[in-house]
Amino acid sequence: MMIVADNLHVVNPEVAKAVADLDPGPIRRLVLDCREAGAQAIDINSGPLPRSPEKHFSFLVETVQDAAPLPLLLDTTNPAAMEAGLRSCRRRPIINGFSLEPSKLQKILPLAIAYDADIIGYLLDADSRVPIEADEMMALAVELFDASTRSGLSAERLIIDPVIAPVSWDNGIRHNQAVLSLLRSLPDLLGGPVRSIAGVSNLATGPMPISRKIELERTYLPMLAAAGLDMALMNVFHKPSVQTLKTCGALLGNTIFAWDAGSPDK
Amino acid sequence: MMIVADNLHVVNPEVAKAVADLDPGPIRRLVLDCREAGAQAIDINSGPLPRSPEKHFSFLVETVQDAAPLPLLLDTTNPAAMEAGLRSCRRRPIINGFSLEPSKLQKILPLAIAYDADIIGYLLDADSRVPIEADEMMALAVELFDASTRSGLSAERLIIDPVIAPVSWDNGIRHNQAVLSLLRSLPDLLGGPVRSIAGVSNLATGPMPISRKIELERTYLPMLAAAGLDMALMNVFHKPSVQTLKTCGALLGNTIFAWDAGSPDK
Repeated sequence: MMIVADNLHVVNPEVAKAVADLDPGPIRRLVLDCREAGAQAIDINSGPLPRSPEKHFSFLVETVQDAAPLPLLLDTTNPAAMEAGLRSCRRRPIINGFSLEPSKLQKILPLAIAYDADIIGYLLDADSRVPIEADEMMALAVELFDASTRSGLSAERLIIDPVIAPVSWDNGIRHNQAVLSLLRSLPDLLGGPVRSIAGVSNLATGPMPISRKIELERTYLPMLAAAGLDMALMNVFHKPSVQTLKTCGALLGNTIFAWDAGSPDK
Repeated sequence: MMIVADNLHVVNPEVAKAVADLDPGPIRRLVLDCREAGAQAIDINSGPLPRSPEKHFSFLVETVQDAAPLPLLLDTTNPAAMEAGLRSCRRRPIINGFSLEPSKLQKILPLAIAYDADIIGYLLDADSRVPIEADEMMALAVELFDASTRSGLSAERLIIDPVIAPVSWDNGIRHNQAVLSLLRSLPDLLGGPVRSIAGVSNLATGPMPISRKIELERTYLPMLAAAGLDMALMNVFHKPSVQTLKTCGALLGNTIFAWDAGSPDK
């Protein structure tokens, strides 16, 4: 499974200041720390960009790709900023993301086709409602797949995000069980392999001790991995969670994390 | 998921001495420690009993059930000792276990029927060989189910053990992936719910640091739980592994482990 850092986010005040000042230093250091911690890709979440969004988002993209040659997820809801970011990318970017919401279908999805980018499709309905049951998710996955291929997107450019819910939500736990069923059924459902991603930090949002957040991540990640998840968007500074993903790779025979299990001399 | 302690084992020298001396004290203390650590059932693994096996196994059963009112797994390959243990049990015991090996079918399986006990069936072939691929496991599960119901065992008395392999084995990792497929397919395969158990300590046998053993357990347990495993036979003194199982219960909506996830006041 690929580990994607969600740490580059403007809720981080250091990032917000660096973006406002167009100062690459703090962003560069954060990217290098993420890579050191195990990140194999970086999600660039600019949040709302009140002033010159295109300039600021391009600045972020250029700063991150100058810092480390990692795949980038462009995470903005502003189509003009997204397009500026896409123009700045030197390798194939991942657009994060679109859904069946009409404005996303009209303004974000076409950018993936125009720039031959990968794109993340959220399993939300046209009103951005999160479904609870697996059969609703399956119907949305088929609808999203059909809408994107009908628009001219190649199936291998699509990455499905079933949207992990906070465990504190009323139906969060039921929803997250349905996510596991959905992931297991995706290849059958869409008639072939389609990649998937999930935002693991969502699981433990809200006030709870960091040890409990990590315990939840460490327990849910192996379930996601065994269900076939391809990419985990997560806080890569949660070291035990990253370690768990590496052990998942070893237990599921993922050669990227080939692991010296059982070597008696180690 | 039910947590079954595998800690009461004669490889533990204190247990071996207590059995040889017919001294209940150390066994009683161990059982209470297991219960304190989270055990909901106790596996009584006597190992080979060279002297008066019936007397020594009955002593073990009586000592354990006097110490705590927990379900017992009677874990001996000696049919006479097994029968003595069954006679000593005050509540329905779990025989651990039988397989398609002819001597087990002839001498152990009938005891489950005679004593109306639960019984664990190992997915091993008639030569006690461990299968590697999921389809072999599925064929063995069907054969075991048919052999036991044909002998008069009720399906709800059967507990399937797909036999977890050490990760250090040549095909251990492939085998353990197949175990997950097998567990997910059991209800369809056997036409209804059939309970399952797995010996989690097998995963990390051999020389490796305790931290790595626990890391492997904590990562594989959620995969097993999400695949539908009913009972985990494990070292209950591996506190983080027990904690992981409790978190699995919370994430999978198991009410036994209903968990105050997300209560902002805690």
